[in-house]
Amino acid sequence: MFIRRFSTSLVLGAILATAAIADTDPAVEARQAQFSLYSFNLAVLGGMAQGRIDYDAGAAQTAADNLFHLTRHDQGRMWPEGTDTASIDGTRALPDIWEDFDSFVDRFVALQGAAESLQGVAGDGLDALRPAVGQLGAACGACHDDFRAER
Amino acid sequence: MFIRRFSTSLVLGAILATAAIADTDPAVEARQAQFSLYSFNLAVLGGMAQGRIDYDAGAAQTAADNLFHLTRHDQGRMWPEGTDTASIDGTRALPDIWEDFDSFVDRFVALQGAAESLQGVAGDGLDALRPAVGQLGAACGACHDDFRAER
Repeated sequence: MFIRRFSTSLVLGAILATAAIADTDPAVEARQAQFSLYSFNLAVLGGMAQGRIDYDAGAAQTAADNLFHLTRHDQGRMWPEGTDTASIDGTRALPDIWEDFDSFVDRFVALQGAAESLQGVAGDGLDALRPAVGQLGAACGACHDDFRAER
Repeated sequence: MFIRRFSTSLVLGAILATAAIADTDPAVEARQAQFSLYSFNLAVLGGMAQGRIDYDAGAAQTAADNLFHLTRHDQGRMWPEGTDTASIDGTRALPDIWEDFDSFVDRFVALQGAAESLQGVAGDGLDALRPAVGQLGAACGACHDDFRAER
């Protein structure tokens, strides 16, 4: 029991040390990881919606399920003050986020709704998928337009 | 309607272009993003379990809920052949993964189970949290021991 606890503690220590040595703010790294995973799944769904990838019900449903779960990740620790484009490098998060945080949260809630709707129809054929992907893309864009800096 | 479709297509195009210009294999980037988000949440739970952060039932439950959802992300597109340490830079994924893929999948299923158990008790006090975090850490370590290269 002692050995097991000790071993568990070592494992956790190693995991936490890995987190600690990153140069980037952990919150910035986490939110960028989240966007990377959104994009990973949208590549499949967008490709099908735009006709560049053949529609496959199983693959579409899997990607939509993934986006559903990803958009359930709580945002509370991901957007601390002082992590905007005016304060740090390596982010495109505009100060406007913190000037109108309620609107920012509303945009995320809209994204959650669009992901849930997409999950409900992704396996039902391309004609069902296409408008739902369009709505998800629009939810992404609505937030980017107001709160993300151009490259 | 045309304008809306056109605009949605532009938004999706921009998102997909962003994914396409990354140098890293999208699958490698996605799985590393996943690990980054695991770590982001384990920092809270491990900190509480180890007594470095005061136990807070709400924060513990939120982090455990996040891990639950993250471990529901399908792994099917994240581990393509040819993305091991012998084939590419920038990964610690050992070739052993693909030599014994069933065992690798078993480790992930164990992680899913540990995350679900943790979600069930995270808000029930530190005495309930600590062993569940230990089990989750052990599930992480069981996979790292066999399938991840040392730094």
